[in-house]
Amino acid sequence: MSIKIGIYGYGNLGRGVEYAIRQNRDLELVAVFTRRDPKSVQIDTEGVCVYHIDEAKNMTDKIDVMILCGGSATDLPVQTPELAKLFNVVDSFDTHAKIPQHFENCDKAAKQSGKTAIISVGWDPGMFSLSRIYSAAILPDGNDYTFWGKGVSQGHSDAIRRVEGVKDGKQYTIPVDAALDAVRSGSNPELSARQKHIRECFVVAEEGADKARIENEIKTMPNYFADYDTIVHFISQEELDRDHGGIPHGGFVFRTGKTGKNGENKHVIEYSLKLDSNPEFTASVITAYARAAYRLNSEGVSGCKTVFDIAPIYLSSKTPEELRGSIL
Amino acid sequence: MSIKIGIYGYGNLGRGVEYAIRQNRDLELVAVFTRRDPKSVQIDTEGVCVYHIDEAKNMTDKIDVMILCGGSATDLPVQTPELAKLFNVVDSFDTHAKIPQHFENCDKAAKQSGKTAIISVGWDPGMFSLSRIYSAAILPDGNDYTFWGKGVSQGHSDAIRRVEGVKDGKQYTIPVDAALDAVRSGSNPELSARQKHIRECFVVAEEGADKARIENEIKTMPNYFADYDTIVHFISQEELDRDHGGIPHGGFVFRTGKTGKNGENKHVIEYSLKLDSNPEFTASVITAYARAAYRLNSEGVSGCKTVFDIAPIYLSSKTPEELRGSIL
Repeated sequence: MSIKIGIYGYGNLGRGVEYAIRQNRDLELVAVFTRRDPKSVQIDTEGVCVYHIDEAKNMTDKIDVMILCGGSATDLPVQTPELAKLFNVVDSFDTHAKIPQHFENCDKAAKQSGKTAIISVGWDPGMFSLSRIYSAAILPDGNDYTFWGKGVSQGHSDAIRRVEGVKDGKQYTIPVDAALDAVRSGSNPELSARQKHIRECFVVAEEGADKARIENEIKTMPNYFADYDTIVHFISQEELDRDHGGIPHGGFVFRTGKTGKNGENKHVIEYSLKLDSNPEFTASVITAYARAAYRLNSEGVSGCKTVFDIAPIYLSSKTPEELRGSIL
Repeated sequence: MSIKIGIYGYGNLGRGVEYAIRQNRDLELVAVFTRRDPKSVQIDTEGVCVYHIDEAKNMTDKIDVMILCGGSATDLPVQTPELAKLFNVVDSFDTHAKIPQHFENCDKAAKQSGKTAIISVGWDPGMFSLSRIYSAAILPDGNDYTFWGKGVSQGHSDAIRRVEGVKDGKQYTIPVDAALDAVRSGSNPELSARQKHIRECFVVAEEGADKARIENEIKTMPNYFADYDTIVHFISQEELDRDHGGIPHGGFVFRTGKTGKNGENKHVIEYSLKLDSNPEFTASVITAYARAAYRLNSEGVSGCKTVFDIAPIYLSSKTPEELRGSIL
């Protein structure tokens, strides 16, 4: 008997979840929900229907876990607690500063309904957070470093596109090799924003626009670019579409620490991701956690959880015996 | 109120646990147990007594968690189930093939006593196993690769020292850079033992010994060296003591996998460790899991557990709220 999954929101992330479900034989996609006209949404799985989100509330008996695929800015803060009243849910809420509030809202809803809500699942927050919690527990006397990239930052790409005279643009966040090497050496460097990341922008200017002004406006934009070494390339729309259509991302999490009688022994823990598709990898993580949500709830666990609260065995489709005998 | 820890066996690992406990304010070392004459064992913590192992059974009310620091070959298979009848225990049993049997033995003992036993904690098995279970759950369509080193292999160093005419020796296991790069590229190479690791030996020959014969015997030794490119250096005892006295180790765990409609997007997950001291790092991991053993048992959980069964939050001395607000 497979675990029945609903997808709530069908953009890049929702489509990624659809593909991820196919790689897991114990999971089954049973419905996709959209805010748009369901007839206008073409999904990739035969025999599965698309419904308007308003119909979800009538399908609580058909869905074991609802995977929320909306955005963190406005969708998830409302949708996750709302749907946790009806379903086990998983989301990828990634506004780090607002996680405590989101947790409280979802916990309250899920405890009332007796459902399990797992929030902030993906790679950061998510897999990177796991690396941080394990490493810090093992090496209490140490330092954490997180680097992002090379990858496309949606927020920074949006910021470029808001500059007057910019028709289109993409921004890559790139970790500085010298900074990575300094961290790997165990020297515990103190690194400024500028020392950690480079920002590389590919910009399509409108015809006749003043490129010097655009470049200057980007490079001096507070919060987004002013604190970094920023590179601006002007290219054609064709080049942008041809060479920068992907959504790659990734990054590095380090913990460097000391042990021994006088801290004489150094250790470096490094976790890194190199992802061709940021949304598809995030989708793969939340899909694995949907299995955990179902199992935890079957055991009577309710309320809000994060990746910190969930034993890894809940993510795997294999039995405990198989896992102990093969990959332990 | 701190968690009271006993150390059972005081070699490199036991001493590492002693140092690790000092880095954790909620843990307190209360006793060290040895097979030797307790008077002959000098520990590094003032006010803590050394006892003969036979006295452990009389101290069940003084110790919350016993950390077993014996060897996997003969000590732990007997000691861990035996002590699980009396204490919450953690061990670093690392004979992968015998984990299922060890698990059964410890589970039976711990269930009878109502104690919690956590076995096979360290880095492999341990942190590497965690990387494998998480990564495989996220990328079901993928491949696993584990590399060890650069580091000292105890088993291979022992094998060198058993060769006639060898006075002393150390063996380093070294991952082959080309193999690491091939895996990182996502090309999913099939790699032989020889393609993955080099074995580098530093050998002190007895006076007048036939070095050519020794070198040949090492290089052709079945199981240990014959399937690898092996480098043999003859050096003096002084050089060995001066340059090869440490016990560094480490390694790499990769999962490479595909996602998307037709597997068109590749992803690489890499976890690596670079450790100045193998026993001290292992000690740091098992010390963190001692906290988990105590907490799980306080919640009424009994029986045998592995790193797969334990939610990461149990390892951290911080509160759930702190963790969600800082490192999630």
